[in-house]
Amino acid sequence: MREAGPLDQLIRAFAGLPGLGPRSARRIALHLLTSRDTALLPLIAALEKTAESVKICPVCGNLDTVEPCRVCRADGRNRGVLCVVATVADLWAIERTGAYKGLYHCLGGVLSALDGITPDRLNVDSLLSRVVQGQIEEVILALSATVDGQTTVHYLTDRLHEQPAQIKISRLAHGVPVGGELDYLDDGTIATALKSRASL
Amino acid sequence: MREAGPLDQLIRAFAGLPGLGPRSARRIALHLLTSRDTALLPLIAALEKTAESVKICPVCGNLDTVEPCRVCRADGRNRGVLCVVATVADLWAIERTGAYKGLYHCLGGVLSALDGITPDRLNVDSLLSRVVQGQIEEVILALSATVDGQTTVHYLTDRLHEQPAQIKISRLAHGVPVGGELDYLDDGTIATALKSRASL
Repeated sequence: MREAGPLDQLIRAFAGLPGLGPRSARRIALHLLTSRDTALLPLIAALEKTAESVKICPVCGNLDTVEPCRVCRADGRNRGVLCVVATVADLWAIERTGAYKGLYHCLGGVLSALDGITPDRLNVDSLLSRVVQGQIEEVILALSATVDGQTTVHYLTDRLHEQPAQIKISRLAHGVPVGGELDYLDDGTIATALKSRASL
Repeated sequence: MREAGPLDQLIRAFAGLPGLGPRSARRIALHLLTSRDTALLPLIAALEKTAESVKICPVCGNLDTVEPCRVCRADGRNRGVLCVVATVADLWAIERTGAYKGLYHCLGGVLSALDGITPDRLNVDSLLSRVVQGQIEEVILALSATVDGQTTVHYLTDRLHEQPAQIKISRLAHGVPVGGELDYLDDGTIATALKSRASL
C-alpha cells in the first residue's frame, strides 16, 4: 500500500530499461512527479512524438522520421560501399566521426549461441540481396572485437564469398586506441597492434 | 543530421533525469524504439496514467492517487506522532520498514545555503500549523545526517519550541548501521556510537 498502483507500474516500466534498476527507477519516477511541468509532461510529449514519427528504415535498419532514412537518401554518399553494423547505436557512432561516406546495413545484433541469436534472427538475407542487387563493391564489417562479433564476421564473410559477384570484404583495424596508454591495454590488443604494425 | 529531431528531443529529455547522462539516455531511447510494443508503448501508458492519477497529498506532501493520501486517511495510525521527512523517497523508505505507525510531513527538501533553499521554499509553515491545530504530541525529525539535514533539524527545533504547545521533539538515532562493520565506518559515526552507547 505504500506505493500507489500507477506509480508502481511506472517504476516497473523504468526499471526494465537498460542501465536502470528498481532504485534508480524510483528516483526517476519521484523526480518526474515532483517536477511535473518541467520533466513529466515534456517527457510524455517527446515519447509520443517519437513513437508516432520515428520509423525503422526498410533499407538499412536505421531509425529516422523519413522512409528510407536520410542516410540512405542522401546525395553525395558512395553507394558502392556498405558498412555492416550490429545496432543503430553503432551506426550513429560511425556517423558522428564524419569519416565514412558510404551506406549502412544494420544487422540488429550479432550471432550468439548463448542468447540463441541465429542468422535468421538477424538482417542477413536483406544484406545479401542488397549486395547482389545493388552495385556494391565493398562490404565493411564494422562489428565489435568480441567473440560474438568476430563469429558474425566469419559467418558473413563465408556467406558473402558464396555470392557470384566479386565483392571486397574488409573489417575494422585492430590496434591501440587513439589516446590509449600501452600500460593499460590488454595483451591481445598489444600483440595485434605489433603484428599489424605500420611502416613509417 | 545523424539523429532525427524528435529522437534528439527524447534523448535530451531522458538525459535530464537524475542518474542519466547523454550516453545512457541514447541507450534507453534506442532500446525503447527497437522494442516498441514491449517497452515504448507501455512506458507511455504508465507515464500518462501516473500524470493524470497521482497527486501530491495536500496534508502531508506524499504522492498518491487519492487525496488525502492513504497514509493520512488510514485507520489505526497514531495521529499524535508526526515524522518529518525531506522527500517522498524518505517517506517510502520509512514506510517499507513497517516500524512506524504515525503520520508524516514531507518538507520537500532540506535547507541549503549553497542551493538557495530557504525556509519559505520548504513546507515549514504547513508543518507548524499542523502541529498547532492537530493533537500532535511528538515530532520526529527524520532528516539525513548531513550538514544540510542537521541545519534543518536545528532550524525546525527552534521554530517548534517557539510554539505555545508543549511538543516532544526527537531525531533519528546515530550509530553503527545494522550489519555494518566497524572497520569500514568513518570516525564520526564510531565516536557518536560510543558516546550514545546503550547499557546491556
